[in-house]
Amino acid sequence: MNRWLLPEDIADVLPSEARKVEALRRSILDLYQSYGYELVAPPILEFLDSLLTGTGSDLNLQTFKLVDQLSGRTLGLRADMTPQVARIDAHLLNREGVTRLCYAGSIAHARTPVGSAAREELQIGAEIYGCASWEADFEAITLLLSTLNVAGIHKVYLDFSHAGVLEGILDGQNISKEDIELIYGLLQSKDRTRLASWAQCLPPESAQALMTLTELNGSCTEVLAQAQKILPKHSLIDEALSQLDCLATAAAGFSKELELSIDLADLRGYQYHSGVMFAAYVDQLPQPIARGGRYDHVGQAFGRARPATGFSLDLLSLAHLAPQWVRRPAIVAPWINDVTLTRKITELRHTGEVVIQAMPDDAVETAEYLCNRELVKKGDSWEVKQK
Amino acid sequence: MNRWLLPEDIADVLPSEARKVEALRRSILDLYQSYGYELVAPPILEFLDSLLTGTGSDLNLQTFKLVDQLSGRTLGLRADMTPQVARIDAHLLNREGVTRLCYAGSIAHARTPVGSAAREELQIGAEIYGCASWEADFEAITLLLSTLNVAGIHKVYLDFSHAGVLEGILDGQNISKEDIELIYGLLQSKDRTRLASWAQCLPPESAQALMTLTELNGSCTEVLAQAQKILPKHSLIDEALSQLDCLATAAAGFSKELELSIDLADLRGYQYHSGVMFAAYVDQLPQPIARGGRYDHVGQAFGRARPATGFSLDLLSLAHLAPQWVRRPAIVAPWINDVTLTRKITELRHTGEVVIQAMPDDAVETAEYLCNRELVKKGDSWEVKQK
Repeated sequence: MNRWLLPEDIADVLPSEARKVEALRRSILDLYQSYGYELVAPPILEFLDSLLTGTGSDLNLQTFKLVDQLSGRTLGLRADMTPQVARIDAHLLNREGVTRLCYAGSIAHARTPVGSAAREELQIGAEIYGCASWEADFEAITLLLSTLNVAGIHKVYLDFSHAGVLEGILDGQNISKEDIELIYGLLQSKDRTRLASWAQCLPPESAQALMTLTELNGSCTEVLAQAQKILPKHSLIDEALSQLDCLATAAAGFSKELELSIDLADLRGYQYHSGVMFAAYVDQLPQPIARGGRYDHVGQAFGRARPATGFSLDLLSLAHLAPQWVRRPAIVAPWINDVTLTRKITELRHTGEVVIQAMPDDAVETAEYLCNRELVKKGDSWEVKQK
Repeated sequence: MNRWLLPEDIADVLPSEARKVEALRRSILDLYQSYGYELVAPPILEFLDSLLTGTGSDLNLQTFKLVDQLSGRTLGLRADMTPQVARIDAHLLNREGVTRLCYAGSIAHARTPVGSAAREELQIGAEIYGCASWEADFEAITLLLSTLNVAGIHKVYLDFSHAGVLEGILDGQNISKEDIELIYGLLQSKDRTRLASWAQCLPPESAQALMTLTELNGSCTEVLAQAQKILPKHSLIDEALSQLDCLATAAAGFSKELELSIDLADLRGYQYHSGVMFAAYVDQLPQPIARGGRYDHVGQAFGRARPATGFSLDLLSLAHLAPQWVRRPAIVAPWINDVTLTRKITELRHTGEVVIQAMPDDAVETAEYLCNRELVKKGDSWEVKQK
């Protein structure tokens, strides 16, 4: 076997690309800082029970398991940082008021996610805890769109959905968690035949409403107007539609290049979300570049109910879409034991220049830097000269 | 069980501390960039065979194992990034000349390392490939010391050792890998009784030299002079001592607060190192804060022999030693639908200010930021006022 082969859908990030990722990471974390988000860094490994608290079966299947020698218990390698951050808010910070947290770190998937070619991601995201109203969702959406802007992406398609609509339709029916996940899948794939067959167990009005969901997608104004007309009257549905209306109206002002839509059947892939959900698409990718939404139930599962909303994305995918990395100019210096040279090199590095000292018998070769200048001796001093 | 409990010696990095780590990470990576190091990011998971190529049994015991569903093979969660970076140099970049690489990422240990209280680290480091002479080791040492300076640490004890001395002493003897590791342990613990008993299998001159190693530690000049006198004449030993002499002389000029020493018996914990080795100590910690040295054999194990030297350290430990994080000043703004206010907030954020919008009914509470100002309406415009 070739010892340098990597497992399927796992890759190295090589020079230039790694620097591009690093530059984006910094700009994005700085953006979150300018909004007052506090940075946290949960561990890559946790007890599996803790890692999956309040989440769906999707995340369980996605999580690599391993044994802890010290405790004999099963650990999980995180496949998503969001539940970890919710745990930090619920039990470590333990604040009453609104808490804003952001994070950036490696996650791994046991199976390659649909539409992706990578089992390892560099997840970056921001979350707001302790605010149940739509303003928090709006801040999350604003920050998501600004994140894409930072990466040079302006043409964005933002698709909304809301878990409250289905919840309202199925309210009062006794439906198992497994069946809910099945419906999510059928709605997502717009599989009307199987959905209709499943819906026979429901009262006619609910079954009818469920079937209608597969058609409620398109421009925000139209979908909302149609939903008001067709869907049954229910406080959960009313609230969901009114929140979507607030958010769509507010987000419309973000930029002219932003296209908004609603798909009330798109509930898959949100794993543990509860209220409003959103996914951002770009022209270059079939799957969303970023996802977010409410997940008020997760804090509750940790024993402390807290409203929660936020979003996350894979920085490696984002970097692929961002403009090509420009090689940074560098100065080549010889390796000589000369105090004046050493002083000059130190000076240049302090002013932000990259100075590469050529090792004995070495022709400097680098992908990340453009060696367009060199240090040459002129009389008693060293000077920078174009190459 | 408490779902928010973490496994032994695994911890969250909370606000303020996480920001301190992030600030250090950036300054240190910028330092490596100013020397022309190219950034790489290997994956956190690899096939175990690949991850352990060219390394010792210590690393195997330290590595968490898990099963890859896609291939059915055993994966390792990396406990050290250095062999991964050597793999990248040997097989992905495939350059002839000198290559400088740097990295920063999460690693995990199956067992808590001796003297530590953490099984997860944020490893940061720099490596030079393709240069066999002491100048490369010297650049690595300079960069290690500069890294500590960036974290505000100036009083440093740098301890040298060299694998070539023991290699010279045992040259021509047929000694198993297991026995070599045993000797490393006995030398490290200066266990003269067991060492003498083991050495009975060696010719008298070699046995004598081996015993002498336990006494060859202290100031560089003295140890080197004594070693020249006592140790047997052998090309490997001569070369080792001459390299140590070059490095000690060059490093002495780094700073007045740097204390240099040599311990020729300190070979443990270097796992896969071959030539010169060094460890940096600080007053606050019993174990080294950073380690480094040559590991020319690792590239060879990947099928392409390349001289290699470098160092790495744990950024989380370093951050603990760095000065306290100073809370960043922030401005609190109300959440009102007002175009002038939104424009003012955007402006302030662009100039580098942190502006936190209070959600409806929210008193802003944060550990990372110091909310010492607020935005108040004055006539038609919004102004920043001290709180």
